[in-house]
Amino acid sequence: MDDLGGCLGRLREGAPLVHCITNLVAMDLTANALLALGASPAMVHAEAEAEAFAGLAAALLVNIGTPDPAWGRAMEACAARASRDGRPWVLDPVAAGATPFRRELAGRLLDARPTLVRGNASEVLALAGEGSAGRGTEAGDPVEAARGAAEALARRTGGVVAVTGAVDLVTDGALTWRVRCGHPLMAQVTATGCALGAVAAAFLAVGPGPEEATTAALLAFGLAGERAAEGAGGPGSFRAGLLDALAALEPGDLDPGRVAPA
Amino acid sequence: MDDLGGCLGRLREGAPLVHCITNLVAMDLTANALLALGASPAMVHAEAEAEAFAGLAAALLVNIGTPDPAWGRAMEACAARASRDGRPWVLDPVAAGATPFRRELAGRLLDARPTLVRGNASEVLALAGEGSAGRGTEAGDPVEAARGAAEALARRTGGVVAVTGAVDLVTDGALTWRVRCGHPLMAQVTATGCALGAVAAAFLAVGPGPEEATTAALLAFGLAGERAAEGAGGPGSFRAGLLDALAALEPGDLDPGRVAPA
Amino acid sequence: MDDLGGCLGRLREGAPLVHCITNLVAMDLTANALLALGASPAMVHAEAEAEAFAGLAAALLVNIGTPDPAWGRAMEACAARASRDGRPWVLDPVAAGATPFRRELAGRLLDARPTLVRGNASEVLALAGEGSAGRGTEAGDPVEAARGAAEALARRTGGVVAVTGAVDLVTDGALTWRVRCGHPLMAQVTATGCALGAVAAAFLAVGPGPEEATTAALLAFGLAGERAAEGAGGPGSFRAGLLDALAALEPGDLDPGRVAPA
Repeated sequence: MDDLGGCLGRLREGAPLVHCITNLVAMDLTANALLALGASPAMVHAEAEAEAFAGLAAALLVNIGTPDPAWGRAMEACAARASRDGRPWVLDPVAAGATPFRRELAGRLLDARPTLVRGNASEVLALAGEGSAGRGTEAGDPVEAARGAAEALARRTGGVVAVTGAVDLVTDGALTWRVRCGHPLMAQVTATGCALGAVAAAFLAVGPGPEEATTAALLAFGLAGERAAEGAGGPGSFRAGLLDALAALEPGDLDPGRVAPA
Repeated sequence: MDDLGGCLGRLREGAPLVHCITNLVAMDLTANALLALGASPAMVHAEAEAEAFAGLAAALLVNIGTPDPAWGRAMEACAARASRDGRPWVLDPVAAGATPFRRELAGRLLDARPTLVRGNASEVLALAGEGSAGRGTEAGDPVEAARGAAEALARRTGGVVAVTGAVDLVTDGALTWRVRCGHPLMAQVTATGCALGAVAAAFLAVGPGPEEATTAALLAFGLAGERAAEGAGGPGSFRAGLLDALAALEPGDLDPGRVAPA
Repeated sequence: MDDLGGCLGRLREGAPLVHCITNLVAMDLTANALLALGASPAMVHAEAEAEAFAGLAAALLVNIGTPDPAWGRAMEACAARASRDGRPWVLDPVAAGATPFRRELAGRLLDARPTLVRGNASEVLALAGEGSAGRGTEAGDPVEAARGAAEALARRTGGVVAVTGAVDLVTDGALTWRVRCGHPLMAQVTATGCALGAVAAAFLAVGPGPEEATTAALLAFGLAGERAAEGAGGPGSFRAGLLDALAALEPGDLDPGRVAPA
């Protein structure tokens, strides 16, 4: 965790192309967050072309927020290809426990071994097969309650799991970190968590390893949220300010003092 | 109509989960309007899971703005289930008269007896089977022109019908009210009417009855629009300000003096 | 090119209904840009109704940003009908070269002879069957590099081609113009190019000819971008400001001095 600022520097230089199969609500904010930060978004979900496109991108985001069977098949094909090609990919298991269809899709995607799983506590608990108090896309459980589930998931996938909330957790199954940043207004704007998943994919594309890249993503996004909150009159102006703050962020802003072993 | 402020207070406390099957253009503003006001949105439309999800929510919104046959089947299944379960649901018959496909879908949804129909004058006229000057999603008819059609529709569904425009009408088929609030900038931002439909579903979830809950929703949304217009430099800044104003609204702001029998 | 301001005046008076089959990321900004400028948007893409709807609109936009086979068939049916009816239509060949599916769809749409093709340099090169450095939706090639391809495409369709970038090119295959306007922040906001395609469709609906209508659209959109950039703190506030500026634009603002033969 000693080069978090360098991660942002490399993202800005490399402008990685991030292939997003994401939900219909999150597409606009996700594409704009990637552009603001300096990455390049591409939303490609059709079975007829998604897998062909996957090879062009530096990283993949799979977000199951508004799935249907055809999108699910494209997600699975692209996830499998990313794993096969050694390309980093993020699974965002939105409301994973809400319906059997969603739970099964999330389970199959998990089997494809995502580089990173990013979810709120309820989603991570549901994905790990544990009970959860979540409903819809909102967490009904505190972040700490999902620590064990997150560590177990990370050992199962061989990747990293991030549980986001008031304080974020990042774990590779052996080591776990807390990242302290963010602002309550982020939960009053739809798709901020989804956009963060895509931002994490962009960071994974430029490395170094998934623990540090994920932590840099959480920190960059959370700091931008804090700064946006300063000038915001509510969730509407905060949303615009969040994109402004992502664009203005400098590598030196990513203070490693916000990160500590948990 | 003597506890409009109490409706907003209960919404904030209860944070009802609103299941939205809405159009692709409106999803972002709709989810953000619900969050800003204090409700919890969930966009779930796939046939594979929509009906399973429906039981988790406190209210349902069905908006036919960008329908296709598969979404239409999910809409019908969820609407039927909501009616069966006694769960409030809103039908927003966007551009109901524009094509035969849309007219027929709207008709079948009407047969499932929505708790509330919210449309502009042209949509309400089209739904009632009367001629209309509307084209696309915009009303070509004044609100008053749809009064008779709205009252007839309400008697047919046993629910409430709201016709929104410069002055809004709410009717249960026997009694009709006028709600005076709003601002012309609302018509210069896409999906404000659609977001209002979802906001009404959130109010219906916390009661008391559909007439008063609907009126509280119209008033809350219109007042937020008025306040947002004060600081706006045009439709772009107005859109952000509308969400800020929804979040800042207090129960005491819902002035019953804006509502009168029509 | 002597009545660019008059084009905007006619658009405001006529408020043309623009039928958009566009991508999922661009819908919100596209609808809002049309409304801000004074046109009327309608997003209708389902095979079950798109062609029936097409006859109600004054112009059509076909944008292949997030295509799938069913949407592709609706695009082809509506494009063919527009050409048959003599109704202006715009093809926006987003990332045309990225996958075989997209390349073939773009090729079939081109055969239906769009009134205007609007793309970045890489998209225009791909559509003309020439190599391109583009990836995803971003241009990897400078505008001038696509001049020959644009002129060849225009001769092939009998319509106009616009290549947008730092300086825009408009050509009918015989004459070519440069339009100097815009701001780099436009490339940091997703879907600005897509929204411009829809704005061009609105201008085409009110004439006079496609060269002048297209040029007026590029100029109006670029000038709004310049003005929005003045007050912007970054891409988020710029996006809101762009819509404010489109709404505030006056016919007299469309300075013909920004346009010159190339």
